[in-house]
Amino acid sequence: MTNQCGTSRIAGCQFTLYPMSDQFVDIILSSLDEVDSSKVWKETDDVTTCVRGKMVHVFDVTKAIFLHAAKTGEHVAMSGTFSIGCPGDNEADVYMAETDEPMNLEKSQTINQQAGCKFSLYPLGHEDYMDKIYQQIDLSKARGVRVSASHYMTRLDGDVKDIFNAIEEAFESVQEEVSHTTMTFTISANSPSNK
Amino acid sequence: MTNQCGTSRIAGCQFTLYPMSDQFVDIILSSLDEVDSSKVWKETDDVTTCVRGKMVHVFDVTKAIFLHAAKTGEHVAMSGTFSIGCPGDNEADVYMAETDEPMNLEKSQTINQQAGCKFSLYPLGHEDYMDKIYQQIDLSKARGVRVSASHYMTRLDGDVKDIFNAIEEAFESVQEEVSHTTMTFTISANSPSNK
Ligand SMILES: [Ca+2]
Repeated sequence: MTNQCGTSRIAGCQFTLYPMSDQFVDIILSSLDEVDSSKVWKETDDVTTCVRGKMVHVFDVTKAIFLHAAKTGEHVAMSGTFSIGCPGDNEADVYMAETDEPMNLEKSQTINQQAGCKFSLYPLGHEDYMDKIYQQIDLSKARGVRVSASHYMTRLDGDVKDIFNAIEEAFESVQEEVSHTTMTFTISANSPSNK
Repeated sequence: MTNQCGTSRIAGCQFTLYPMSDQFVDIILSSLDEVDSSKVWKETDDVTTCVRGKMVHVFDVTKAIFLHAAKTGEHVAMSGTFSIGCPGDNEADVYMAETDEPMNLEKSQTINQQAGCKFSLYPLGHEDYMDKIYQQIDLSKARGVRVSASHYMTRLDGDVKDIFNAIEEAFESVQEEVSHTTMTFTISANSPSNK
């Protein structure tokens, strides 16, 4: 391995929340406001939001932001990439000292919201990366989601919480085998196509 | 290499166009309508649009759809993933017989639109993937765009056409060295943060 990676298992997600509504600013700001992001490093600019810290909190915060936006009933989507194993900077390492208790789990559990999601896993730096994916992902065990194939991606349909659980488990399994792993996703709720 | 890949150099892009507007349906449909996608295989569902074919047309169509949506003046973004080298299906191979002339270039050249874009390249199946990225990407040669670093991604700012030219060149260079390459991107125009 010639790449330079950090030693801590800090995870991160670069995502954008997209409310397809004239009220998009209010929806984004109130979602960010309702979610407790005290256990992650967080930075937002005009293109994406980046959260970094322990894997459990990166998923907890990302899921909660999507849920709070989707419960407005507006057509809302989110696209992003989860990463672990890189880069080598340590600016957010202090967040690795947080406890494992997710800050938004209780509130998120009260929101029932159907969605469709497509995701792809990219284990980097291994010649047998396809084997790593197939060995580590067993979506037949994913509870509450319908799994289907899509070009370049896998599609999941079901409750938002079950979808995030499934992709978190898949990501967690692969990164145990492959140091640098990324996972892209797009999740969409309240699409008029489904009404 | 143990992965199963197709032999043709068919490229693809899975993307979603996000107009942050109550008029999102009209904007999406009229953008799709204005763009000539006759040289690519195309499929849209409620989560993403997938286009496949020769690399030149996949970029031409994706760029044109974003440009036509952004010229409405609404805050519009697009997130997606370009891929080449996989999967092994051949359903769209017929489109590889098209000529190389981009169908939307002339119309796209007339639209001037500033945007911000973040992208990441993932060469798959190589232990020295970081070297492949650094060797093949020389963004200092990218005309008309400002380049800056961002967590997990590289940021480009400038005219939409220059941004797409830069990421197309980067993707093209890496895929010459690495059979299976993916590239994620998020591009955003007319953000109220920049007004
Ligand atoms: Ca990706």
